[in-house]
Amino acid sequence: MKFSLQQVAEAIGGFVEGDGALEVSQLAKIEDAKEGSISFLSNPKYTNFIYTTGATAVIVNKDFVPQKPLNLALIRVLDPRKAFTDVLSFYNESKLKSKVGIEEPSHIGACFSKGENLYLGAFAYIGDHVTVGDNVKIFPNTFIGENVTIGNNTIIYPSVSIYPDTIIGDNCVIDSSTVIGSDGFGYIPNEEGVYDKIPHIGNVEIGNNVSIGASVTIDKSTIGHTIIGDGVKLDNQIHVAHNVAIGKHTVIAAQTGIAGSVRVGKYCRIGGQVGLLGHINIGDKVNIQAQSGVAKNQEDGARIQGMPAFDYNSFNRSYVYFKKLPELLGNHKK
Amino acid sequence: MKFSLQQVAEAIGGFVEGDGALEVSQLAKIEDAKEGSISFLSNPKYTNFIYTTGATAVIVNKDFVPQKPLNLALIRVLDPRKAFTDVLSFYNESKLKSKVGIEEPSHIGACFSKGENLYLGAFAYIGDHVTVGDNVKIFPNTFIGENVTIGNNTIIYPSVSIYPDTIIGDNCVIDSSTVIGSDGFGYIPNEEGVYDKIPHIGNVEIGNNVSIGASVTIDKSTIGHTIIGDGVKLDNQIHVAHNVAIGKHTVIAAQTGIAGSVRVGKYCRIGGQVGLLGHINIGDKVNIQAQSGVAKNQEDGARIQGMPAFDYNSFNRSYVYFKKLPELLGNHKK
Amino acid sequence: MKFSLQQVAEAIGGFVEGDGALEVSQLAKIEDAKEGSISFLSNPKYTNFIYTTGATAVIVNKDFVPQKPLNLALIRVLDPRKAFTDVLSFYNESKLKSKVGIEEPSHIGACFSKGENLYLGAFAYIGDHVTVGDNVKIFPNTFIGENVTIGNNTIIYPSVSIYPDTIIGDNCVIDSSTVIGSDGFGYIPNEEGVYDKIPHIGNVEIGNNVSIGASVTIDKSTIGHTIIGDGVKLDNQIHVAHNVAIGKHTVIAAQTGIAGSVRVGKYCRIGGQVGLLGHINIGDKVNIQAQSGVAKNQEDGARIQGMPAFDYNSFNRSYVYFKKLPELLGNHKK
Repeated sequence: MKFSLQQVAEAIGGFVEGDGALEVSQLAKIEDAKEGSISFLSNPKYTNFIYTTGATAVIVNKDFVPQKPLNLALIRVLDPRKAFTDVLSFYNESKLKSKVGIEEPSHIGACFSKGENLYLGAFAYIGDHVTVGDNVKIFPNTFIGENVTIGNNTIIYPSVSIYPDTIIGDNCVIDSSTVIGSDGFGYIPNEEGVYDKIPHIGNVEIGNNVSIGASVTIDKSTIGHTIIGDGVKLDNQIHVAHNVAIGKHTVIAAQTGIAGSVRVGKYCRIGGQVGLLGHINIGDKVNIQAQSGVAKNQEDGARIQGMPAFDYNSFNRSYVYFKKLPELLGNHKK
Repeated sequence: MKFSLQQVAEAIGGFVEGDGALEVSQLAKIEDAKEGSISFLSNPKYTNFIYTTGATAVIVNKDFVPQKPLNLALIRVLDPRKAFTDVLSFYNESKLKSKVGIEEPSHIGACFSKGENLYLGAFAYIGDHVTVGDNVKIFPNTFIGENVTIGNNTIIYPSVSIYPDTIIGDNCVIDSSTVIGSDGFGYIPNEEGVYDKIPHIGNVEIGNNVSIGASVTIDKSTIGHTIIGDGVKLDNQIHVAHNVAIGKHTVIAAQTGIAGSVRVGKYCRIGGQVGLLGHINIGDKVNIQAQSGVAKNQEDGARIQGMPAFDYNSFNRSYVYFKKLPELLGNHKK
Repeated sequence: MKFSLQQVAEAIGGFVEGDGALEVSQLAKIEDAKEGSISFLSNPKYTNFIYTTGATAVIVNKDFVPQKPLNLALIRVLDPRKAFTDVLSFYNESKLKSKVGIEEPSHIGACFSKGENLYLGAFAYIGDHVTVGDNVKIFPNTFIGENVTIGNNTIIYPSVSIYPDTIIGDNCVIDSSTVIGSDGFGYIPNEEGVYDKIPHIGNVEIGNNVSIGASVTIDKSTIGHTIIGDGVKLDNQIHVAHNVAIGKHTVIAAQTGIAGSVRVGKYCRIGGQVGLLGHINIGDKVNIQAQSGVAKNQEDGARIQGMPAFDYNSFNRSYVYFKKLPELLGNHKK
């Protein structure tokens, strides 16, 4: 995809110094950039590269004064770092926007209600009574079960499975191989010690602006809803069990597992490979260190670590002693 | 899907008090229920809701005596809690039973042997020489390799990959994105310290009444079989390596990993995020706490925790001291 | 698939004693082998089975002298154990080689450049501007995004998702449900404490002779490349975050997670369920025990364990004391 410098400048609120009709098709680090690419200069340590870079254009601070003649165009902005991020977003969004239409073969069930600018990839499967908003992009090989509702601008990458009755909000992104709405892991041992399945008829409800990584699994509730709040960000390979509720704007790193019926508050930060035991309540703004195992309710603002987890500072003090145990207790040994 | 109260009552062994021809299409909590839904009353704390609920019918104990006039039908049963579970099962099974037929396009290889009431979703792929029993449901985008055998009443959800030569029993459920029969992780370092692959030509054999969650991976054996016994329940994102055998009715929570050639006994309960080191033997009825790392054989009935794991009570006593180390050893510090 | 003993002998550098035209179609343990199968005798403990096995042929050491008359053919080799592995490889590779051609329906985008002997399974999706080498096998339901390049002899199993711009080398194997090139988990909290996505425009580059297990996720870099070096072996359910680089011939066991921008050296051995914190450097030949959590840079050759991890021997000494804490400190308690 190619963009004129003028298009880029408009997208990021800057102004072009040079030929606004010049086209760029790539983004690159200033030290690596070649012709046809655009780069940015934010860290003064890299200033020298602007005189040697092959970039067609560089995004610079509005006050930048070159010390030597420049062989390229500039786009002047208030904050070059933020502007570069805006360029990346503009580039990614432009690419996505260009994906429109229904590829064949795909399967569309009865009573499909769709908005504008739908992209439906080949081999995607839409069950009966599915509703999707405007600008929804559903990539190839994805399965959307019956009675699913998907909001505006939501992107679902290849080989995702969305089970029936799931509700997904606006502006969500769901990466490949993720599974939403599978049955919870609920069994009752019968008189022979053999496990009978507890049927699950609930669903999963996902708010707006939620990002869900690759190979995440979110189970439906037994009855009622498993809830992922607005703005929640889930990294790859996270497991969310049945009847869990995660509050708004909570961020969870990869490979964390949340057992059944846990309540997680708002604005929490949970590290990778954490385990949360079933039926506990985690308050708001709780910070859980990676690999911790949480077995108890946590108050708002708690910061914890360990397996089982307790206060972060206390854990780390104890761990200092753990490392020194042979030295401190060596004389007790015999 | 709609059911008459009479149909529901027959499915759960109850009797209707009111109009058996009334139809319900939803199940709901008694406090939330609306017209057209059925609910249940088991906990006496919720008794008051029966006078205000919008439910069309409520399942109650056979001895329930209302204190006020009721504006709904009742289904009287011996055990309302169990009856409600039975309703859920009846509802889910009715939905599944209605899925019959082969959707196009799908791929069916040579010599496909199928039973009655098959459902094969669009974009599902059946390799050569596959055999499936009666009432098998294979959802869209699923891959079944050559020489696979699947028993009666088994359900395979979307985007599952079953590699060649896998054998799956009756009444199994396999959730989305799960992979069964991939090569084991076996390599031999050669003279240059580079790893050569050990070829795997075994398979995976899964018994009857096994449930396998979403995004589980079960590797085939080098030679011989990786075995999942009858009645085993595996939660999401579990990893089972090559040549593992898991005994009957063992239950394993999410994100646990079992390394190569481990033997796990019958009726074990293994928590989430547990790791089992290769080539160990876990006895019957062993209970392993979440996040434990097991590096040694375990006798029948052992209950263990820790990384590495040892006796559950001993671990927890040691952990109490771990938390107090700064206090207990603080004077040793200098 | 059937092979004559002569074909097998040529494939493994042995010579037949008996009828080279006899055909075998299965490989089996000597104690279980039936007619039509081939087995091997390497461990002297199993010698007696050669007189009773049902195998059509057995691979033996070139110096093997039977003590009783034999009712089968022999293939004599220098090293029967290695020869058997070679047979397995020969068998698996013969099966794969026979898979050639493009199954319909599949989706092939614009400007597809392919080598010889391509296998493309039904419901596989190839985006625009994809290049694949000779002998590439792409199984059903797999998604290959635009601008992806795949080297010679690489095998991609069903339901894999390869995002745009990924580069994969020669002789690689990628198992089912794996996701390569999804966006990294990068967000910036804005003034309201809400997270804005950092756009990712980099890619993933995978060297030659790399094996990637099932349900692995490898995120693309923000800008530049996430790199998996030549000869790297990744077990199932591993998570590799954005901007990570893994050195050549490093081997990583299942369910390990590597956070963003980590550098891992060459010839490392990393156990299962390990977590590596973001932005650290792991030297060459580092050995990390299973379930460890690594929060600091590690020098070449380090061997570490624990959460957080430190020297392996020191951890284990400390853990011995941890187990004895109640006994050693019990008198301090009151």
